[in-house]
Amino acid sequence: MTSATPPSNNTSLTSSQAQQPLSESALRALAATAIEQIGKKQPLVQVITNSVVTNFTANALLAIGAAPAMVDIPQEAGPFATLASGLLINLGTPTPTQAQAALEAAQAAHHAQTPWVLDPVAVGILPVRTALAQQLLDFKPNVVRGNASEILAVSGQSAGGRGVDTTNTVEQAQQAAVALALRIQGIVAISGPEDFVTDGHRHIRLGNGSALLTKVTGGGCALGSVMAAYLGSSPSPSTYFEYTCAAILAYTIAAEQAAAQAQGPGSFALHFIDRLAQVSAHDIHIHAKISI
Amino acid sequence: MTSATPPSNNTSLTSSQAQQPLSESALRALAATAIEQIGKKQPLVQVITNSVVTNFTANALLAIGAAPAMVDIPQEAGPFATLASGLLINLGTPTPTQAQAALEAAQAAHHAQTPWVLDPVAVGILPVRTALAQQLLDFKPNVVRGNASEILAVSGQSAGGRGVDTTNTVEQAQQAAVALALRIQGIVAISGPEDFVTDGHRHIRLGNGSALLTKVTGGGCALGSVMAAYLGSSPSPSTYFEYTCAAILAYTIAAEQAAAQAQGPGSFALHFIDRLAQVSAHDIHIHAKISI
Amino acid sequence: MTSATPPSNNTSLTSSQAQQPLSESALRALAATAIEQIGKKQPLVQVITNSVVTNFTANALLAIGAAPAMVDIPQEAGPFATLASGLLINLGTPTPTQAQAALEAAQAAHHAQTPWVLDPVAVGILPVRTALAQQLLDFKPNVVRGNASEILAVSGQSAGGRGVDTTNTVEQAQQAAVALALRIQGIVAISGPEDFVTDGHRHIRLGNGSALLTKVTGGGCALGSVMAAYLGSSPSPSTYFEYTCAAILAYTIAAEQAAAQAQGPGSFALHFIDRLAQVSAHDIHIHAKISI
Repeated sequence: MTSATPPSNNTSLTSSQAQQPLSESALRALAATAIEQIGKKQPLVQVITNSVVTNFTANALLAIGAAPAMVDIPQEAGPFATLASGLLINLGTPTPTQAQAALEAAQAAHHAQTPWVLDPVAVGILPVRTALAQQLLDFKPNVVRGNASEILAVSGQSAGGRGVDTTNTVEQAQQAAVALALRIQGIVAISGPEDFVTDGHRHIRLGNGSALLTKVTGGGCALGSVMAAYLGSSPSPSTYFEYTCAAILAYTIAAEQAAAQAQGPGSFALHFIDRLAQVSAHDIHIHAKISI
Repeated sequence: MTSATPPSNNTSLTSSQAQQPLSESALRALAATAIEQIGKKQPLVQVITNSVVTNFTANALLAIGAAPAMVDIPQEAGPFATLASGLLINLGTPTPTQAQAALEAAQAAHHAQTPWVLDPVAVGILPVRTALAQQLLDFKPNVVRGNASEILAVSGQSAGGRGVDTTNTVEQAQQAAVALALRIQGIVAISGPEDFVTDGHRHIRLGNGSALLTKVTGGGCALGSVMAAYLGSSPSPSTYFEYTCAAILAYTIAAEQAAAQAQGPGSFALHFIDRLAQVSAHDIHIHAKISI
Repeated sequence: MTSATPPSNNTSLTSSQAQQPLSESALRALAATAIEQIGKKQPLVQVITNSVVTNFTANALLAIGAAPAMVDIPQEAGPFATLASGLLINLGTPTPTQAQAALEAAQAAHHAQTPWVLDPVAVGILPVRTALAQQLLDFKPNVVRGNASEILAVSGQSAGGRGVDTTNTVEQAQQAAVALALRIQGIVAISGPEDFVTDGHRHIRLGNGSALLTKVTGGGCALGSVMAAYLGSSPSPSTYFEYTCAAILAYTIAAEQAAAQAQGPGSFALHFIDRLAQVSAHDIHIHAKISI
């Protein structure tokens, strides 16, 4: 393999080949299976994320049965990414040290074919992370997740949102998401009242969730780590798309169940972790809202 | 305007001009209005704070209807401070990177007239943050909040407390607070069993709260961010004093309500976030304890 | 005392001299006393720990009646370690800045005879922290706590676990723990279904706890800080061994009580902090599971 050849393009090929038409019932069944895979595999998930949500993120991963490891310093982040089952890189507070670790980890993950997720928090309006996100895209994240403004900004089609909040609708970012997915030969997921997921060829809408998720810091960020856990439990790259959808479904169904018990954002956060630990294949079968 | 002229002294003049006598009923009414302003404006609050309380702080801001953004790295902190509705700089864990970002943000906020709050955690006993606090004072925070020992130390009148805890009473720090307020042409708030707030000319005591706030880490620090949200929702600098009081009242009334439901510091923290999301203008009218 | 003489070897001598045989009832009584000492002394605990667990750790310390202070930057960490009642150094996310602060604090604690605890998180598999841990051992931590894989790795007898999880049993690490305790002339505590504590001469097994502690991030890390609080409340170094056991007992009994109320890891974390604030000498007398 020469340095001119991208080393993990096997993944990309597999992903491109996997363009069989989606059926709502097949996705539901595969998503239900995915939940059980997490419990069996107990994926080791490397997390490089912002300082606001580390705790909530680790607790979300523990709740679903994954093993979180926040290895985010240079010289450790790279070697660990070759061992991990999956990796999240979230750009919420990219200190110089963490940015260096993120590049190291993304490169190592790309070479080792460790699946990884990029969450470009507040990209567009802030210069350091905007440049960093473009560098990271070269290492072909398997999933980019963000709100509509972030996806537009990463795609170079807008200047970003308002802080960490979107100023665009999911619909406005769909074309950008498709273009970005084709560029990275991976998956793009836009979060919103209805989530949109595409691999550039197929796309899907997922309708579960609760507005209370936006009232708990890390409500979006932790989903990125859960996606990394699901990718890390996928039997092969050919089901990364379905496993990404499964992560969203398990996460947003748990949110719905927690919201039904909550008296505010504080109690919601607690019930959410409890429900995330309990959400089952059965819940996916009964409650998943999937539109193709 | 030349560089020799402090650029935001309009704020100071307005603040100085606003020395109309306070009435207890007028403050109560204005504080009640302020709560509703937060919900309407949804202020974007930049937070540069210590690594212990980021999560709790962001959740407190989300609960009151503000949009938190922890933008605390050099090159991003400055530009963002010109966009933000308000800014908190808390010196709890000032790494070299964060200290540089804090200076950048304070300078930018000062120039852009973005209201900002300084929380000089453990200043006096620790050398790095003590020097940093003095540098930051040059950018004229609109509010300095701290416990009695911190206010005395910032004013140069004592060597500080015991870690993050005060070793002085609120009464012992009142004169220092008045002197500091005059020096920064802003507001100083001392937290304690009864809070003391002064702009150097006027002063007030606020009597709500719960000792359980001191048993949850971030119980004090998050108040600084809530103050920044209130300042950022104030219709003009002329009501910064009243909006600072409003932030304290909403926060400490929520704490009282949470304490009534709590079985310990863990459940208190949860109920506090729930109550903070619900505290209303009506609660201020009924429960606020104001002494002039 | 010359600079060629290690300054705190009094501690080591005292520790070595304290090899009186342990009795189960004497330990139980001393552990019950220790809980009350914490409340009286309100030890000031310096915490240098990973970014994931700072919040939970500080709340655990507040719950037991200690005063947490996360002073973890160079130039401040050293001076503060001479003032603190106890110190925890946890290697979970050792950024260059924090690593420098950790060395500074360990050296200062060693010289000032401030008791300190080392938690070598994920040592063995990750190069930066593995080298750092060996440097820190030169400053003779009074307690090293970790899971079996971490203790084996620190002792140089294995390559470490899987991320932050152990791949070894407590039994497999007991000999390494004894050797390490003799090397540092201190105490080594291995966490597991049954905890093992040794000072190289004596050893003990403690059987309280709940598997839910492993489902909350910081469930292990916060125990290190609680140990530092207990050491800092010990009347003399001669009871460091018993106070270490007392910390484990109070912590794991609170976990058992919380687990009885929990509906998942989210509610467990809340109840755990509540119970930690209430666990009493009486609880130790009634519930402690001690095997000698």
